[in-house]
Amino acid sequence: MKRIAIIGLGLMGGSLGLALKAVGGYRVLGYARKPQVAARARERGAIDAACPDLAASAQADIIVVATPTLAVAEVFRGLGPYLAPGRIVTDMASTKEQVGRWAEELLPEGVDFVGGHPMAGKETAGLESAEASLFRGCTYCLVPSPRARPQAIAAVVELVERLEARPLFLGAARHDYLAAGVSHLPFLLAAALMTAAAADPAWDQLAQLAATGFRSATRLASGDPKMNGDICQTNQAYILHWLDRYMEELKDYRRLVAEAGIEEALARAQKLRGQWLEQRWGQSGPGGDHD
Amino acid sequence: MKRIAIIGLGLMGGSLGLALKAVGGYRVLGYARKPQVAARARERGAIDAACPDLAASAQADIIVVATPTLAVAEVFRGLGPYLAPGRIVTDMASTKEQVGRWAEELLPEGVDFVGGHPMAGKETAGLESAEASLFRGCTYCLVPSPRARPQAIAAVVELVERLEARPLFLGAARHDYLAAGVSHLPFLLAAALMTAAAADPAWDQLAQLAATGFRSATRLASGDPKMNGDICQTNQAYILHWLDRYMEELKDYRRLVAEAGIEEALARAQKLRGQWLEQRWGQSGPGGDHD
Repeated sequence: MKRIAIIGLGLMGGSLGLALKAVGGYRVLGYARKPQVAARARERGAIDAACPDLAASAQADIIVVATPTLAVAEVFRGLGPYLAPGRIVTDMASTKEQVGRWAEELLPEGVDFVGGHPMAGKETAGLESAEASLFRGCTYCLVPSPRARPQAIAAVVELVERLEARPLFLGAARHDYLAAGVSHLPFLLAAALMTAAAADPAWDQLAQLAATGFRSATRLASGDPKMNGDICQTNQAYILHWLDRYMEELKDYRRLVAEAGIEEALARAQKLRGQWLEQRWGQSGPGGDHD
Repeated sequence: MKRIAIIGLGLMGGSLGLALKAVGGYRVLGYARKPQVAARARERGAIDAACPDLAASAQADIIVVATPTLAVAEVFRGLGPYLAPGRIVTDMASTKEQVGRWAEELLPEGVDFVGGHPMAGKETAGLESAEASLFRGCTYCLVPSPRARPQAIAAVVELVERLEARPLFLGAARHDYLAAGVSHLPFLLAAALMTAAAADPAWDQLAQLAATGFRSATRLASGDPKMNGDICQTNQAYILHWLDRYMEELKDYRRLVAEAGIEEALARAQKLRGQWLEQRWGQSGPGGDHD
């Protein structure tokens, strides 16, 4: 039975543990910086046993680093001396170029690094929000190090498939560009809407009128600021690119509103989203898409 | 038993009919430009009877115009000649200054106009999406004409309270300013995200990576383009103000990302949204706020 060690037992690591325990076939070990988190993970059935330290985690066959992005470097540094050749290391961070550089620099030779990023999440953080079904049906990006052995890559693919997620191989830069557009830009837009509205002198009344539309438009503003701040630091260039691209689009929209000609753009957006929903989720139209 | 005529039997008019029929106490008449829509509304139990024309609708005690915004003017023009003094007219359009001017211009003297705007909706349009509970708990903005008699205003407040909605009196300009910020700006932001992402050469891959975050960030892009286009035409100045304000906020965010100092703004946004959820919906944290 393969031993998996999950380092970091928040939303992502906790959900991974719950999912693996549900499908079986792995012995699931867990490590969290705060011992009480690992204890709670064990109580919730997300792990079989807690590791006392990083050195113990390093004895597993596959080590999954599920911390916020900037902490991945520290964990790699802490694990490095204890990792025997043939160990497989993967992560769940949202940006892959920086994490790949840390792996290159901090993990010993003979260890196989296969970067990972499941395109799934919730705006609420922590073990309490973890769910066994979080990754079911999601696109799970895989960015293997150029030196990773085929059998190590296959072992991570097997893990992903056990989660009922769909592996998608990408280069690190390509991944970061794509994630900036559909994941990182949206949380910045949501936060900016929240702070812009709340900074208005009429916020008391705005807050009364704001309804389900504002609620979904700002949902991602409830995301973990530390986690999202780390993402912005490690994917800065692509995020700035997308912010610039988006501001250009908004300028076009502004012009169209001023010219009373926005309806066509709105119709295009509606159609594009319907197609995406249909293709991505196999559903569209009434009932398929609430708040 | 008071007679209510609902003109326009889409999402808003249909939901109003279903809600009034559920609580009882009104005879609910309906008119739709396409007779088959009125027939379906009757089948669904949203109205007691269909009016053959606008003239027949004008015989009701309270006439509710529930069409897209630009069509309100046509309906007022068509109703005008048939409205006896003492009739009460209200509407459900998202912008109130322009509708108030049309009421002033097109409705006969002695008719009481009390503009209305329930802060509730869905991104899917049409009678098929209508729900009896759509307005329950929502803020229902009321903008009475300066000449509306107190008993007419009281009759509309009674109607709103029957829907279990919360009446909020506002001036027309104030309403339009507030609605532009929390309702109209958000649908433009969602549409711009959708079209900007889909215009990227990598859209095929972006679409695979886009997950629940992108889904909620673009939800409002599925709104009816005609309805939202009308809103942009009749609330242009305030929408342009909010677009400009939002672009300033995004420029600040861009600078903070470039300086690796965005975390504080993200933390502020998270906190503000938590407070708003708590105050507005009486809930926050895990489980309370999905996609």
